[in-house]
Amino acid sequence: MSKTVILFGELMIRLNTEGFSRFVQADRFNIYYTGAEANAGAALAGWGYEARLVSRVPTHDLGQACVNYMRRYGLDTRFVQRAGEKLGILYVENGASQRQSKVIYDRGGSAFATFSDEALDWNDVFRGARWLHFSGTAPALAPRLVPVLKRACAAAKSNGVTIGCDLNFRRKLWSQEEAGRVMTELMEFIDVLICNEEDAGMVFGIKARGDSVTSGHLDRDGYGDVARQLQERFGLSHVAITLRESLSATMNNWSALLYTKTECVFGKKYAIHIVDRVGGGDSFAAGLIYGLCEGWDTARVVDFAVAASCLKHTIPGDFNLVTLDEVKTLMAGDGSGRIQR
Amino acid sequence: MSKTVILFGELMIRLNTEGFSRFVQADRFNIYYTGAEANAGAALAGWGYEARLVSRVPTHDLGQACVNYMRRYGLDTRFVQRAGEKLGILYVENGASQRQSKVIYDRGGSAFATFSDEALDWNDVFRGARWLHFSGTAPALAPRLVPVLKRACAAAKSNGVTIGCDLNFRRKLWSQEEAGRVMTELMEFIDVLICNEEDAGMVFGIKARGDSVTSGHLDRDGYGDVARQLQERFGLSHVAITLRESLSATMNNWSALLYTKTECVFGKKYAIHIVDRVGGGDSFAAGLIYGLCEGWDTARVVDFAVAASCLKHTIPGDFNLVTLDEVKTLMAGDGSGRIQR
Amino acid sequence: MSKTVILFGELMIRLNTEGFSRFVQADRFNIYYTGAEANAGAALAGWGYEARLVSRVPTHDLGQACVNYMRRYGLDTRFVQRAGEKLGILYVENGASQRQSKVIYDRGGSAFATFSDEALDWNDVFRGARWLHFSGTAPALAPRLVPVLKRACAAAKSNGVTIGCDLNFRRKLWSQEEAGRVMTELMEFIDVLICNEEDAGMVFGIKARGDSVTSGHLDRDGYGDVARQLQERFGLSHVAITLRESLSATMNNWSALLYTKTECVFGKKYAIHIVDRVGGGDSFAAGLIYGLCEGWDTARVVDFAVAASCLKHTIPGDFNLVTLDEVKTLMAGDGSGRIQR
Amino acid sequence: MSKTVILFGELMIRLNTEGFSRFVQADRFNIYYTGAEANAGAALAGWGYEARLVSRVPTHDLGQACVNYMRRYGLDTRFVQRAGEKLGILYVENGASQRQSKVIYDRGGSAFATFSDEALDWNDVFRGARWLHFSGTAPALAPRLVPVLKRACAAAKSNGVTIGCDLNFRRKLWSQEEAGRVMTELMEFIDVLICNEEDAGMVFGIKARGDSVTSGHLDRDGYGDVARQLQERFGLSHVAITLRESLSATMNNWSALLYTKTECVFGKKYAIHIVDRVGGGDSFAAGLIYGLCEGWDTARVVDFAVAASCLKHTIPGDFNLVTLDEVKTLMAGDGSGRIQR
Amino acid sequence: MSKTVILFGELMIRLNTEGFSRFVQADRFNIYYTGAEANAGAALAGWGYEARLVSRVPTHDLGQACVNYMRRYGLDTRFVQRAGEKLGILYVENGASQRQSKVIYDRGGSAFATFSDEALDWNDVFRGARWLHFSGTAPALAPRLVPVLKRACAAAKSNGVTIGCDLNFRRKLWSQEEAGRVMTELMEFIDVLICNEEDAGMVFGIKARGDSVTSGHLDRDGYGDVARQLQERFGLSHVAITLRESLSATMNNWSALLYTKTECVFGKKYAIHIVDRVGGGDSFAAGLIYGLCEGWDTARVVDFAVAASCLKHTIPGDFNLVTLDEVKTLMAGDGSGRIQR
Amino acid sequence: MSKTVILFGELMIRLNTEGFSRFVQADRFNIYYTGAEANAGAALAGWGYEARLVSRVPTHDLGQACVNYMRRYGLDTRFVQRAGEKLGILYVENGASQRQSKVIYDRGGSAFATFSDEALDWNDVFRGARWLHFSGTAPALAPRLVPVLKRACAAAKSNGVTIGCDLNFRRKLWSQEEAGRVMTELMEFIDVLICNEEDAGMVFGIKARGDSVTSGHLDRDGYGDVARQLQERFGLSHVAITLRESLSATMNNWSALLYTKTECVFGKKYAIHIVDRVGGGDSFAAGLIYGLCEGWDTARVVDFAVAASCLKHTIPGDFNLVTLDEVKTLMAGDGSGRIQR
Repeated sequence: MSKTVILFGELMIRLNTEGFSRFVQADRFNIYYTGAEANAGAALAGWGYEARLVSRVPTHDLGQACVNYMRRYGLDTRFVQRAGEKLGILYVENGASQRQSKVIYDRGGSAFATFSDEALDWNDVFRGARWLHFSGTAPALAPRLVPVLKRACAAAKSNGVTIGCDLNFRRKLWSQEEAGRVMTELMEFIDVLICNEEDAGMVFGIKARGDSVTSGHLDRDGYGDVARQLQERFGLSHVAITLRESLSATMNNWSALLYTKTECVFGKKYAIHIVDRVGGGDSFAAGLIYGLCEGWDTARVVDFAVAASCLKHTIPGDFNLVTLDEVKTLMAGDGSGRIQR
Repeated sequence: MSKTVILFGELMIRLNTEGFSRFVQADRFNIYYTGAEANAGAALAGWGYEARLVSRVPTHDLGQACVNYMRRYGLDTRFVQRAGEKLGILYVENGASQRQSKVIYDRGGSAFATFSDEALDWNDVFRGARWLHFSGTAPALAPRLVPVLKRACAAAKSNGVTIGCDLNFRRKLWSQEEAGRVMTELMEFIDVLICNEEDAGMVFGIKARGDSVTSGHLDRDGYGDVARQLQERFGLSHVAITLRESLSATMNNWSALLYTKTECVFGKKYAIHIVDRVGGGDSFAAGLIYGLCEGWDTARVVDFAVAASCLKHTIPGDFNLVTLDEVKTLMAGDGSGRIQR
Repeated sequence: MSKTVILFGELMIRLNTEGFSRFVQADRFNIYYTGAEANAGAALAGWGYEARLVSRVPTHDLGQACVNYMRRYGLDTRFVQRAGEKLGILYVENGASQRQSKVIYDRGGSAFATFSDEALDWNDVFRGARWLHFSGTAPALAPRLVPVLKRACAAAKSNGVTIGCDLNFRRKLWSQEEAGRVMTELMEFIDVLICNEEDAGMVFGIKARGDSVTSGHLDRDGYGDVARQLQERFGLSHVAITLRESLSATMNNWSALLYTKTECVFGKKYAIHIVDRVGGGDSFAAGLIYGLCEGWDTARVVDFAVAASCLKHTIPGDFNLVTLDEVKTLMAGDGSGRIQR
Repeated sequence: MSKTVILFGELMIRLNTEGFSRFVQADRFNIYYTGAEANAGAALAGWGYEARLVSRVPTHDLGQACVNYMRRYGLDTRFVQRAGEKLGILYVENGASQRQSKVIYDRGGSAFATFSDEALDWNDVFRGARWLHFSGTAPALAPRLVPVLKRACAAAKSNGVTIGCDLNFRRKLWSQEEAGRVMTELMEFIDVLICNEEDAGMVFGIKARGDSVTSGHLDRDGYGDVARQLQERFGLSHVAITLRESLSATMNNWSALLYTKTECVFGKKYAIHIVDRVGGGDSFAAGLIYGLCEGWDTARVVDFAVAASCLKHTIPGDFNLVTLDEVKTLMAGDGSGRIQR
Repeated sequence: MSKTVILFGELMIRLNTEGFSRFVQADRFNIYYTGAEANAGAALAGWGYEARLVSRVPTHDLGQACVNYMRRYGLDTRFVQRAGEKLGILYVENGASQRQSKVIYDRGGSAFATFSDEALDWNDVFRGARWLHFSGTAPALAPRLVPVLKRACAAAKSNGVTIGCDLNFRRKLWSQEEAGRVMTELMEFIDVLICNEEDAGMVFGIKARGDSVTSGHLDRDGYGDVARQLQERFGLSHVAITLRESLSATMNNWSALLYTKTECVFGKKYAIHIVDRVGGGDSFAAGLIYGLCEGWDTARVVDFAVAASCLKHTIPGDFNLVTLDEVKTLMAGDGSGRIQR
Repeated sequence: MSKTVILFGELMIRLNTEGFSRFVQADRFNIYYTGAEANAGAALAGWGYEARLVSRVPTHDLGQACVNYMRRYGLDTRFVQRAGEKLGILYVENGASQRQSKVIYDRGGSAFATFSDEALDWNDVFRGARWLHFSGTAPALAPRLVPVLKRACAAAKSNGVTIGCDLNFRRKLWSQEEAGRVMTELMEFIDVLICNEEDAGMVFGIKARGDSVTSGHLDRDGYGDVARQLQERFGLSHVAITLRESLSATMNNWSALLYTKTECVFGKKYAIHIVDRVGGGDSFAAGLIYGLCEGWDTARVVDFAVAASCLKHTIPGDFNLVTLDEVKTLMAGDGSGRIQR
């Protein structure tokens, strides 16, 4: 069975203040490279899959540094184009306790927004592939990417590739209306959708029905209802909804549900002491792709995806640098954090 | 309405070991500049007020660096004198869990202790000002500062300036007896007093009366009683008492009460995961001054001051580098620390 | 009464990734020097005891750096031999939340494994000494160290020196069988044994009997039963069992029991927010040695040892850099972590 | 005599790899804020002048951090507008020996390029001012800034303000043709021009005439001839030409000439061991402005400007953080770098 | 023409004290991964060649980190085996001025010394390859690697692959006698030899003859004579001799000669201000391989190799992270280190 | 022959900005501990001598950290008293090229200035000692230390201990007049004097006579004449004059002469690329003491002292962390800085 996953999306530099330093007092940035899809790909590469990036970075040295970073963590960069002058930036300041983390985007006019498939045969990209993953930030960046994405999806379909999408709505990149319109068009290609309940409401206007909703927080039935509506409206094979309870910037509860036509399974809930939560959702996507490609049952898939992404929250940077063994140990119930020696 | 606050007090360098390193193992210090009053002023400057420092620093480059630091965060340094050779020092080692934070003072003979108002027209300082803030550490440093402070207070009064004082008792700087004697003299000028219940007892011998006290911890009535006694003894317009429960060096509960002649209002209590608690009280003072200057009602004032100073505990260094919006978001109940993006 | 403690064991370099960085992403190591016995010795030296290391380090500059580190924290290095080329290494990656800490050993062929007592008069070493401490890692490193250790123990005995041993079973260094065989031989010399319940089972096959065991966790009776069996089988004067509950890599509960022929006393339990838990057990050993040498009653000894080692968990590196006063303050019930100023 | 200098230009963030690390291997950036004109202003502010920035930064926290940085070093930021989303970036990698330093610009669409003087009364800006300084990078950034700059110059003129310009040609920002056309238009306002000989040739086509040129390097006469042509063509009061000999990225010779209608004076030449040469030219401009405002004779002006900018090369970051005394000591011939104690 | 180069040799971790810190005072190590052959490969990969490593690293996380590092800089790691527990170490302390740099090896029992070609078809390795490069450190590590290396060379030969070797004599790894015996055996396979004059003397007893030697330093004729003897004795197609003059740890002169049967060409000599000279020789090998593979004339080859390796000395870490353009600019005579912007 | 050297003087903390950062821009200090005499002692301890400090540090944790630092580098701290609150500070900013290094002292009221020999039997200190070393900064700090020092010298004399003094005149600590008066009194005890020519003039009014002086720089005869006058006036056995030529903060020439009644020998001159020149003079003193104690001839003594202190300039911090072998290699003429491997 093919273990090749195609990831289409932007690659960026992430500049992170040190420790808990705020932007206004920072004198140093730690450098990471990132991208919603690349983040998922890095986890998959670490678990032995082939993760093939389709993207574009500038020709200058930071573009090369970005490619180097991707290669370092095992991503295949042969379809990363080199053109343009601007590498998108994510400035990040880590929150703590009652203080929120902050992200400043500087992505306008980035090389990726000029991505072109003119000289690209999508069949080369998808040959032997199993899965195409992208997130809602890709079309959000530039309208010109929407037809590109459609061509990619069509080629994927014709190569028998499963298509998954992480809704990933970012208010700073586009409006609810645009997102709703474009994402609805793209949904026709999608097999597996990942989102949280809030984004489902904002982008598709889907909210839990009837009396299943208690004020403020949805109960389990409410979340299941949102998943069901998504599944039905778009004819999806799977809908995954991530469930984050932000108790503070330091402590989060984290879980997810996975909905198929026949089941709605909730994963184990983890109380996480957060080191770095950026990329948490992307690492969930990786876990989901992995589990579904492995052909596991629904419960195992969601447990794997939640456990994997739980561990991501303890690792600096966007990449989920954990081994399969580490995820499986946690799934097996050992979250004790004892020393391995 | 004037938004100018005058801050009289020492400016110091704070040398902090990195991370959780102890003094005996440290090979590096992070550098901050600080001062109880400057800390309050920096918050006010960040919120759009004019914060005018009255102080003295040495003529050498560290004096300049200190002034630079104050300017960086928006403080007006035109009344900061340059003379002398010694900048007071606060060596700080951050505690964790059951291990206490440690502060070593090296403030003897500092430039500020030689502060002189001979060549200063206090009316220049207070022209157009709304508030004078100082803390008990200023007179504690040198007896010769007491008459200076009295002249400052007198000038403030004659300019219609409200005078607030943070009791801030530091055993290492003076004895309970000296503190009691001097602070009592100064109380005649004070309108608004900030302290904690322990300092009220040590400096003024004021303790909660009757059966309102339960062993170990005061209950709400007990704290209110202390505030009432302070208000009555010194004819204050407001008394604020900060309420810190140190569960450990890592976790604190934090709140405060604000007592006026007609009300005793307790602020919301926050469970804080601490990044840096030095300057927490000073940031409360800033919040109080801000709220009172804005003319808010008592409950809003204390809620603002508590929320603002709650956030300070998540920021390295002494300055409360938070925006008004961030404080208001927390006041509105969002302490979830979600990412802002 | 003599306050000299002899520590026999390996000295190593510990290379620790920064913050929560994983090995695969680390670009920097913090350098510490360590050794199970040296760790205990450093705490004792800090409390005013003479702590004399018996070990061997390479002749090159890292051997010297290791000796320097030991001297820095007050250890007597006159019996540290210089020979060989290899300093044992402990690579450490700190865990967080559900992610475990990880240790990679590189100790094969180290200078210590070639330690020789040919040119050494053990009577010089033990002259005026009160205690000999070693741990199970010393004989685990090389079979040739077992007879050396026996000669050391015999000389200690003949000099009236109490012998304590921390079982410290490390699967990566030897098998259960070897450990059981060798440690049983060595137990004939031992007066005081420190271990945890798991190691007692793995090395000596000793498990709590009868219905005192509840599934998963032992209750107090179960732990006491293990201690009793150890005491009886080996004729020990004291058995200490450390009790760690790893809730996560960030939060641990920590306590211990001390069993004598007449008493079984449990220490206070601390909920610890962990900074660095490597060396936690060694610092318990130091506390135990200190308390027993001071002639305290059983309850005070175990309370001191638990409080001291609780504080170790808040300090980066392996050494327990706390003062007697700090331990005593915690024993007296102040774990509030308030600032000392 | 007024000591107020107006500086019009972009403010940027400078992200510098650490030490001699290349972009492709960097994991950290040091953060500075910069701008050709702000750099000159910072030096002037340090020497007691009032340096007033006219610029625009984004509304987000990095915009605030930039303003903070400017305030820290004494710049007056009251005319720094807040609007837009993008702060221009200068990525810098320091060269060494035969390896060149590298700069990557990310300035497209920056807040400054949208600077508007609609709501601005230029007379407010220039009231009481002595000098307006800008560089060729300002008009290079956006054609829409050219009329703004002309209005600024006109207002300056009508307020009796001297106008100086540093030609500062940057190939990455505009072509020789555009630069030539626009700068020629602006020259009608300029009193004092600073440039190097290469830029004079590229922008204005001015080259040394006749046999004064020796192959490769101009001799003194050749440089003087370029200055004379510039002075004559544009009717300037002063022309300064900086003279850098790049022996390597580590060693440079540095000097300048100052040409007036009556004199052509060469400054002392310094052999500099370089710490950070970015901002070297801007610090020369500061020295020139200072000397001319002080009314010094030509030789003293050029000597001061060269000595001041020589020292800049020894300071990390773009700002010339040296005191007047330090410059004067060097001018007086003490370049021995002895310890001051 | 194939651009695939095979590199056979050890991969190690390099732990470098920061700045000019000595081992005995260091509290931090910077982490690099290295290997004489990998260093050459990294440069080739950066210039567009395929560089295929044949090596072995441990199964633990540092082995993975090493592989990641190689991938990051474009090396093909598919033939890097995973087995064993020990990653060889190079501890490095940078010298300055009259103080030498220091290297401590900890390579005994490393995973590479257990490299096995049992399960390897060397024809897979060499298929389509152009060049095999290894250095004298590979056979020096373990006698069991000598037959492995011979089988590799034989397979290379039968695949028409050119074989180059860098003599790289390390006294700490083997004796002159062993080196002489083993390297002489291996020379039968070698086409291109790289060495310095000192190693040629120590390993092969080849010294400049007759009156061509002047005391202390060889003149050009002397170096040529050494090259000629090597060429003749071993029937080599090319002999390259690197020429380093260590004026101090800070300043070196650097050049090389390339001897063929018909020519003896000396490269340009560079006076280098050193940032990091470890890996300088390896980067020369890379330059030589590149030039010869490109089919350039002898003078261009040696000029390229010298210029490329000159630049290496300005880059921290062992890898020569320079582009072809940068090397060519330097070859063209621009060693001025001007800023590229 | 005894190898015990007694060092009497202040111990301080040295806070150094990172790299070439100026005080006004620094956000971090590196921590060293120092003292003119301790610096000399650390070198001697590293060379196998017993170096016994007589000093006083505060009781707080920084006092302990200072003692730890001394122990780390092998100094005997048993005579370091613990009392007082203030540890003297040396703030240091490293210069570069034409920019001078800067030192800010904060030594007023330090614990050492309160040093008391009331409870001290100087005979305990000097028992078995060979040498007493102190510098002019000790009496400069406090007049009350002068009689202490005289008692120390008298006791040294009566124990047959040689007394050496480094004149070390610091304008910031006392005036020329005071220094001249006090040092003249102390000279009656001194056997070996170390100074530079400038200090000899300022403290004792001794200048080179007759026509031996050329303007600006003394020639060899001039320096010899100064030494001769010192020797004659104070009846010294040896006078050493250090000869520093500060070409810049980066490049210095360094040498010295040693004058006895019968010889005047100049050491080799080294051109040094400076890493850290603070402590250079102290390391010369260490070399001189070592050579004289070893009984070497005059030329060897001065060559050793100059070579040792040359190497100090390449090491961060005040301590000369070089081995005897390293010094001897340099003396033997190898200043090439080749890698040791």
